[in-house]
Amino acid sequence: MNDLTDAERKALAQCRHAVLGTDRPLRLDCGVDLGPYRVAYQTYGELNAEKSNAVLICHALTGDQFVADRNPITGKPGWWESIVGPGKILDPARYFIICSNVLGGCLGTTGPLDTDPRAGQPWNLRFPVVTIGDMVRAQAALIDHLGIPDLFCVIGGSMGGMQVLEWAASYPKRVFSAVPIACAARHSAQNIAFHEVGRQAIMADPDWKGGDYRLHQTTPSRGLAVARMTAHITYLSEQALQRKFGRALQDRNALGFGFDADFQVESYLRYQGSTFVDRFDANSYLYITRAMDYFDLAGAHGGVLANAFRGTATRFCLMSFTSDWLFPTRESRAVVHALNAVAANVSFVEVDSDKGHDAFLLDEPEMFRTLSGFLKGAAAVRGLGSVS
Amino acid sequence: MNDLTDAERKALAQCRHAVLGTDRPLRLDCGVDLGPYRVAYQTYGELNAEKSNAVLICHALTGDQFVADRNPITGKPGWWESIVGPGKILDPARYFIICSNVLGGCLGTTGPLDTDPRAGQPWNLRFPVVTIGDMVRAQAALIDHLGIPDLFCVIGGSMGGMQVLEWAASYPKRVFSAVPIACAARHSAQNIAFHEVGRQAIMADPDWKGGDYRLHQTTPSRGLAVARMTAHITYLSEQALQRKFGRALQDRNALGFGFDADFQVESYLRYQGSTFVDRFDANSYLYITRAMDYFDLAGAHGGVLANAFRGTATRFCLMSFTSDWLFPTRESRAVVHALNAVAANVSFVEVDSDKGHDAFLLDEPEMFRTLSGFLKGAAAVRGLGSVS
Repeated sequence: MNDLTDAERKALAQCRHAVLGTDRPLRLDCGVDLGPYRVAYQTYGELNAEKSNAVLICHALTGDQFVADRNPITGKPGWWESIVGPGKILDPARYFIICSNVLGGCLGTTGPLDTDPRAGQPWNLRFPVVTIGDMVRAQAALIDHLGIPDLFCVIGGSMGGMQVLEWAASYPKRVFSAVPIACAARHSAQNIAFHEVGRQAIMADPDWKGGDYRLHQTTPSRGLAVARMTAHITYLSEQALQRKFGRALQDRNALGFGFDADFQVESYLRYQGSTFVDRFDANSYLYITRAMDYFDLAGAHGGVLANAFRGTATRFCLMSFTSDWLFPTRESRAVVHALNAVAANVSFVEVDSDKGHDAFLLDEPEMFRTLSGFLKGAAAVRGLGSVS
Repeated sequence: MNDLTDAERKALAQCRHAVLGTDRPLRLDCGVDLGPYRVAYQTYGELNAEKSNAVLICHALTGDQFVADRNPITGKPGWWESIVGPGKILDPARYFIICSNVLGGCLGTTGPLDTDPRAGQPWNLRFPVVTIGDMVRAQAALIDHLGIPDLFCVIGGSMGGMQVLEWAASYPKRVFSAVPIACAARHSAQNIAFHEVGRQAIMADPDWKGGDYRLHQTTPSRGLAVARMTAHITYLSEQALQRKFGRALQDRNALGFGFDADFQVESYLRYQGSTFVDRFDANSYLYITRAMDYFDLAGAHGGVLANAFRGTATRFCLMSFTSDWLFPTRESRAVVHALNAVAANVSFVEVDSDKGHDAFLLDEPEMFRTLSGFLKGAAAVRGLGSVS
């Protein structure tokens, strides 16, 4: 685990990390035993004496543990500072907030970048394929390590929401409340298709070298950029793109009659692609997209989604966004129906937004109000005092 | 114009072609004079004595002139045999049906594959960027060449529909009836974004060689395949993908825990990508997507779409499909509104289909009924006898 990139070293230096699985390795869904493994995480606030105020935030595909402070790689503010921070809905003065980099990630948690201790060389594409279930089991091991019996809340959007659902299904007694946002209980054919295009773009890049690019001192930047560009379109609604860019030109006077970026939307996408490769690892992108594709909570419970939640005492709050076409409202509704079928405690809000899937990361007052109200109610039941 | 690929030679051998622009070159929208240029086309049926039964079919981005007979490259049936052929809605016994490969194409009409007569070397990326307007002007020159004063009908779907709109706007007196299907009067920001991803995938392929891949005897197959895969997703509806593939596995027994095609949808997409590179040229793909991006009929008429049709006597029939998210119904409706604003003769049907954008190529009884009824009415007004 010492073959780190500069980015990983920088990330690790700025966050906490735990080496887990030394006594008992993590049995992955693929059958491989992984251990020891490292989980890099960030915390905000303090665990109270009752150990009842812990909140786990699960990040999305290209997210990380730097929820509410500057990302050491990009220098940008935390990705959910609208929700997490002093005076915010998830206030460190009240909650002990944890966010860990997912298994297979590239910001400090064990993933394909790391060295396979048995082979003495980087895992790269020999890293075992991990699942959302594996990610959640690694998080549970971290929670054990931190001495936390159960979580007041597990919350996340997109792939983060998948982890929330997996937590609620796998550890119902350890999840007091669950907030899966803009997600689904399974990846659809279209979701898989878009991911597959991204993976093909990466693997088509000759600099990818079968995954051994670091060995060859190359980087599959072009493939990874194309993958990101494709994915980025799916994160925005057609309306948001039209409102933001329409057919506006870079040079407002004229079309260029060439293949440079004539339209602002082209320039924007190219920028999204090129900045992404500076902060994300191509193999990690392959592994994490694969984990999302494999996610099928009903499939893992005999084909009946309700079976995943039978007997649950967890309080659920689901949110979707009207213009999210990647994880449309009907996917959240399927989860709500399954929860209703087992008479679970569930509230559901379809937030009216034209910002598409990325709305969960943005300033959405209705999402804030819903989340705030839900957490206040749950905190009261949990016996957590009001904000001092 | 003699630096043809085997595919082009094969295509040309199986269809008619005209060398145009020898006396007067084609003035392209970018300002370049192109001439002489070749237009490859296919015809079905005979022009009647009154020259009143000509129908021009405009093909889509990756379409070709082989509407109703075997494509010489792929060996597959014509792409619109459901509509064109003996006993079909467009019956060669009744109509003289013409379809030409678009300017910038790779099936015989002049495009980036051809030799620049002035430079004595292949155009490749030095071929001028063409527009939908340029394509239509080249078609009009072909219609002149064939001695046809005006067309009974101009019809096409997707980019073909854009050409139909351009025909109606540029040559209103030469278009008796117009049938733009599943299209728009302008390319949206999302449309441009998806095309840009495809172009970036091609241009990121080291085998593209700045467009001079034939000179280097390489083919940017991987980039072109990724471009096609991305585009292909946009041609299908989420529902169609879910119905056709869902989460079905290649090996029904188990996930592979790797990066081979586990899901049938992955295998399908890979197949779409790999077969496309055998029949289409990467530079042509760049040029034709660019032409679509540049299309903005309102923009070309002072920002008011109705201006494009003022005074028109053409009879219009527009069709869109409920599940088409690439060219959604609202885009067709915008055209209908503009036509209404100038009191044009217009009918509009939103066909209920879950097949997405590609529905216009498929077996859609409501589309067939609508088209058949519309053409019958138009033929009666035109004084074309009923089918013998």
